[in-house]
Amino acid sequence: MKELIWLNGRTMPLSQARVSVEDRGFQFADGVYEVIRVYQGRAYTLREHMDRLERSCLGISLPPPIPKAKLAAHIDKLIAKSALDEGMVYVQITRGSCPRNHVFPKSRPTVLFYTRQLPPMDKPRKSKGLKLITVPDERWNRCWIKSIALLPNVLAKNAAIAAGADEAAFVRDGIVTECATSNLFIVARGSLLTHPVGPSVLPGVTRSLLLDLAAEAGVDAVERPISEGEILAADEVFITSTTRELAWVSHWNDKRLGRAKCGPVTLQLHHAYQKRVAETLPT
Amino acid sequence: MKELIWLNGRTMPLSQARVSVEDRGFQFADGVYEVIRVYQGRAYTLREHMDRLERSCLGISLPPPIPKAKLAAHIDKLIAKSALDEGMVYVQITRGSCPRNHVFPKSRPTVLFYTRQLPPMDKPRKSKGLKLITVPDERWNRCWIKSIALLPNVLAKNAAIAAGADEAAFVRDGIVTECATSNLFIVARGSLLTHPVGPSVLPGVTRSLLLDLAAEAGVDAVERPISEGEILAADEVFITSTTRELAWVSHWNDKRLGRAKCGPVTLQLHHAYQKRVAETLPT
Repeated sequence: MKELIWLNGRTMPLSQARVSVEDRGFQFADGVYEVIRVYQGRAYTLREHMDRLERSCLGISLPPPIPKAKLAAHIDKLIAKSALDEGMVYVQITRGSCPRNHVFPKSRPTVLFYTRQLPPMDKPRKSKGLKLITVPDERWNRCWIKSIALLPNVLAKNAAIAAGADEAAFVRDGIVTECATSNLFIVARGSLLTHPVGPSVLPGVTRSLLLDLAAEAGVDAVERPISEGEILAADEVFITSTTRELAWVSHWNDKRLGRAKCGPVTLQLHHAYQKRVAETLPT
Repeated sequence: MKELIWLNGRTMPLSQARVSVEDRGFQFADGVYEVIRVYQGRAYTLREHMDRLERSCLGISLPPPIPKAKLAAHIDKLIAKSALDEGMVYVQITRGSCPRNHVFPKSRPTVLFYTRQLPPMDKPRKSKGLKLITVPDERWNRCWIKSIALLPNVLAKNAAIAAGADEAAFVRDGIVTECATSNLFIVARGSLLTHPVGPSVLPGVTRSLLLDLAAEAGVDAVERPISEGEILAADEVFITSTTRELAWVSHWNDKRLGRAKCGPVTLQLHHAYQKRVAETLPT
């Protein structure tokens, strides 16, 4: 497997790729991104990621510089060229490079995507529970845009690491919105709950898929704000993200949650997720 | 004048400077910056900018990669080498380049600064008044850190441009905090007012200098929250920034403010500012 990058139409080894120091992605966080999971050489839910990327572009008033179907085709080609089997594709679009000025330039946007190998996923039952801490949700108010202005997420994630935990959950006015790098779900009285997407919650692709799978499996799913008290009393808590699929949470600010193992609904949904992935792969 | 950049110890023409696409400044907005005004070949209030840069580094848990006195000496040398007379120096520090992961890496930080020419400032009395619009203050809660996560500021500034105005003022719960690229002052009943620095206001170097100059000139200066109603009723409104010094505001969401010219206290303080600059220059 070779890690390759497509950068403004040119393909090269990732390690050689450079951008101008005056790229607005570097000076202003003026850009958006996607991370797409690759299973057995296939980009999973690529269309959903392309749709969200387009919405993110529009969210920052950046006309999408390349039609999403064309971008998707380029991505598929790069995966093949890289001989990537298990891994991910990272995609980023910025408003381009020009002398530094807050005012939108006429510059050509920077478009890039690259391939990266990842270790294959653990089987759901084998995975260790995650430890979460809470941090105040001090982020801006347009978290539905998947922007590269990720400094608040970086600081939250590292607050978790510094505390010996794995991930940080954002809390605003007693409500848990989402995590630094993932969406959050709980199972309570047989229902699956997660915060609605919007100003403080990213419309996660895995999150959305999970809601579909729950409906198929006959699990009652509700999108509504969740208080911290509900999390502490929940039967099961898990997070979702493109790279981690589902991962169950064992600790919340050092308090043990539920039982000492992955709960039955989490397991059921994770199996359903992996079955859905397998169905999209060539036999 | 040649625009030069110092990038991790190497000096080259600005147009040649590139960073890795995996630089955390490009993927995570994981960095901080400064803009320093150069008058007649001298970096103005360089020490204050170096102090703030150090505080910003600490604010994002990034140990300053270079002692500030040494950085200042390098900056002075680059200005001389560039033969820069009137202009600015842009400084940026990021957490370096490494495979993408929110978790802090062990990588060497990226440090760069470059020189850029600017047109000489207008005389205060000649400058045209600025038109401001208001936008909701949806930014994160650590605006005292001068981070490169500037997307909210970029969007606010461009909302102003799109509305035919020059600058956007952030309003949170009826209080005007600061502007997309500047601090805000008003003169009301003979007093100079500006919002205290903190979660939603950057400690502007020019802002701080202005408060000193006001004290020297016997102008009563108060740091407290300012409501939008107070701005509409103010005798004078102006903004401050490193590159624009003082600039008076003539319109607020299309309403004309005060008189149709720069007010006497704004003029007095702008003259005091320029006198202070002149005193630091070689004769």
